[in-house]
Amino acid sequence: AENDSASTIEDLIASQDVEEIALLLESLPLDQRLKVWVNVPNRKKLDVLVQMRADPREILIAETDESNWTRIFEDIDAEDLLELADSLPRELLENALSVMDKQQRQYFQNANQYEDEQIGHWMCQDVLVLPSNAKVRDGMRIARREIAVHTDTIFLINRNGQFSEAVKIINLLSSPEHIPLSDIAEETIPTIVVTADCSSSATNVLKSGFAALPVVDEQGKLMGKVDVTTAGDLLQEYYEYQLMASAGMDEDEDLFAPVKKSAKNRALWLGINLLTAFLASWFIGLFEATLQEVVALAVLMPVVASMGGIAGSQTLTLIIRGLALDQVNSANCRALLIKELSVGALNGIVWAIVIGIVAYLWFDSSLIGLVIAVAILMNILSAALAGVIIPVILDKAKLDPALSGSVILTTVTDIVGFVAFLGLGTIFLL
Amino acid sequence: AENDSASTIEDLIASQDVEEIALLLESLPLDQRLKVWVNVPNRKKLDVLVQMRADPREILIAETDESNWTRIFEDIDAEDLLELADSLPRELLENALSVMDKQQRQYFQNANQYEDEQIGHWMCQDVLVLPSNAKVRDGMRIARREIAVHTDTIFLINRNGQFSEAVKIINLLSSPEHIPLSDIAEETIPTIVVTADCSSSATNVLKSGFAALPVVDEQGKLMGKVDVTTAGDLLQEYYEYQLMASAGMDEDEDLFAPVKKSAKNRALWLGINLLTAFLASWFIGLFEATLQEVVALAVLMPVVASMGGIAGSQTLTLIIRGLALDQVNSANCRALLIKELSVGALNGIVWAIVIGIVAYLWFDSSLIGLVIAVAILMNILSAALAGVIIPVILDKAKLDPALSGSVILTTVTDIVGFVAFLGLGTIFLL
Repeated sequence: AENDSASTIEDLIASQDVEEIALLLESLPLDQRLKVWVNVPNRKKLDVLVQMRADPREILIAETDESNWTRIFEDIDAEDLLELADSLPRELLENALSVMDKQQRQYFQNANQYEDEQIGHWMCQDVLVLPSNAKVRDGMRIARREIAVHTDTIFLINRNGQFSEAVKIINLLSSPEHIPLSDIAEETIPTIVVTADCSSSATNVLKSGFAALPVVDEQGKLMGKVDVTTAGDLLQEYYEYQLMASAGMDEDEDLFAPVKKSAKNRALWLGINLLTAFLASWFIGLFEATLQEVVALAVLMPVVASMGGIAGSQTLTLIIRGLALDQVNSANCRALLIKELSVGALNGIVWAIVIGIVAYLWFDSSLIGLVIAVAILMNILSAALAGVIIPVILDKAKLDPALSGSVILTTVTDIVGFVAFLGLGTIFLL
Repeated sequence: AENDSASTIEDLIASQDVEEIALLLESLPLDQRLKVWVNVPNRKKLDVLVQMRADPREILIAETDESNWTRIFEDIDAEDLLELADSLPRELLENALSVMDKQQRQYFQNANQYEDEQIGHWMCQDVLVLPSNAKVRDGMRIARREIAVHTDTIFLINRNGQFSEAVKIINLLSSPEHIPLSDIAEETIPTIVVTADCSSSATNVLKSGFAALPVVDEQGKLMGKVDVTTAGDLLQEYYEYQLMASAGMDEDEDLFAPVKKSAKNRALWLGINLLTAFLASWFIGLFEATLQEVVALAVLMPVVASMGGIAGSQTLTLIIRGLALDQVNSANCRALLIKELSVGALNGIVWAIVIGIVAYLWFDSSLIGLVIAVAILMNILSAALAGVIIPVILDKAKLDPALSGSVILTTVTDIVGFVAFLGLGTIFLL
């Protein structure tokens, strides 16, 4: 098996599929990763690095011998460097910039006028463009000359450089040479504003039915385009970010990060959650005397906390998706709250009865059954309330509910659950 | 504000953007949704329904007057019906089938030979195809005749219908008419197997740089294609499924589902989690005597459970992403386990010390500090173990770790945490 996998790795390195090589490198433990990396030919290393996630990439960059960089950077262009920039030490970044021609350096600087989250940073600045009064024959001429991946469209601009129309190159085939391009322009092509965020821009491109959409500035000036491959990458990155954020990590986390680094990456999230757990403990501590008298309450605490947490996370997830789709807003927020509270009431009553009966049978005490039933109902209702309100407030405050929503929610449901349960226990059972 | 939003809705309905109309309908409470639906012209209703998620769509289908369906189904094609099929009552499905011509019915039946999760169900069966010995002029002829969205490529097939090569239409422009198409074919175009799963097929299309990739059967016969819009939709659906699955819901969940239906959708997940919570309670119950003596243990229980749960979910999330990217396999599983256990050991020791000191100061008992410190360390280590092993086993058993991984993980960390903490407490504190 050892030999098999070795030959597969060699085959893979010999192949052209730089993305597969990148995925493989990310999946290898550090010592093996470095051994394989040395065997990747220098001419492929740039493309492989561009495909990798930042954390595993930075490890390889740090371990690459200085003498190799001239060869690696030989064909670097601005788009490559934009992907790599944050991973490169200052010296290497300047080295790469010095290799590129003036035009590519300008491209790099233009992109850096926009933030990472803005589409302007990642758009392609090279577009096929003609004045809006050009003819089909002009279109044929430039289409023959410059054929690039995902260029299915010629953009027309007016004298001020503003985007006016788009012509599909394929439509040139069936049109007489002398007619104006605007006669065969697409009826509607959406435009993207250069400061728009990446994930919504990406969705727009993929939905549009065009291979690429034009990007314009606030004045309508044509700045570049976003093609479907870029859109697919951005979308995948966004979803990966959301998945990782739900556990307090980021999308660049390395499967085989060095232990110290990995522990450090995760420590903050553990610390935040520890604070909320201690807060919950503090509230439980208020009822020490009750717990001492009625130890059944201590036994049943996890049930109350769990039901609130799960019900709350269902509402929270539904609202987070709604916010991402722009479907939750001030117009329907109140109706949503009422609906979620109704669902909570219904499920709360059902499960309160079930849990109440189980607790009654277990501890042979109808009062314990009653106390936990009421506490469950209260907690599921408050979970519905918190599940709607927390993400909406976070979103209004421009914070990402996918990252911090569940910590805050769990804090609320834990505290409400424990206080309701132990408080009612103190009243009825002491 | 009321009037504002009303006029916006009217504008939107008048517009051509059926996807926006679909998103709006999904975002409206049921009574408003039905009012708006009635005002959507019948000629647009089909396209709007196709864009909607299943649950909200089914509500509108049930409320649409019977007399409207003839008009709605007027222009229905097989691709529309594939989207709608699961939402339509049998009678309406047959009604729709009877409206379509023979070719479209065949298309529909072909698609239904494949499962929902297979790309064959969702691929486009209409492709521009020529025999592999065709000339550029043949390519020009069919490209002029059939120009469809996302058709940037002509597929060449041999006498057995097997896919051989692909030619970009744009390359026809700069080639003499008499040369064979195979002279200007793409060097490499990936193919997708018709039984492949949707999410990996979609990723392949978006990464490929082509507007569409050919789909072939096991024998290499050309069956259809997947274009970037379909790929974008499938990818978005997959990620939405993953997000919703993490809270035990599905991607078709309606923001404003009727309360009963919504409560029912969520009840199963609550029930499963309740069982695991009771299981944890049962383990706590084994230590009733200890809890009665040392009530501080009851107060601190949430801290132990929380730290294990959070640490475990971080490992779990990392592994789930790795499995989705095909980066976790038998070759690196052991190395991953060692790395995660090392991270767990490091974070476990750090947080055990912090929590131990806090508990010591809080309850003025060095033994309580010691007991919780050891329990935290044990729980974080077992969380790392469970976080790697659970998703790997689920994945091998063809179960989705995104759905059930976190429930099982929490059960493990809760039980290990409580037993370790209360067990050590019994030994050292009684």
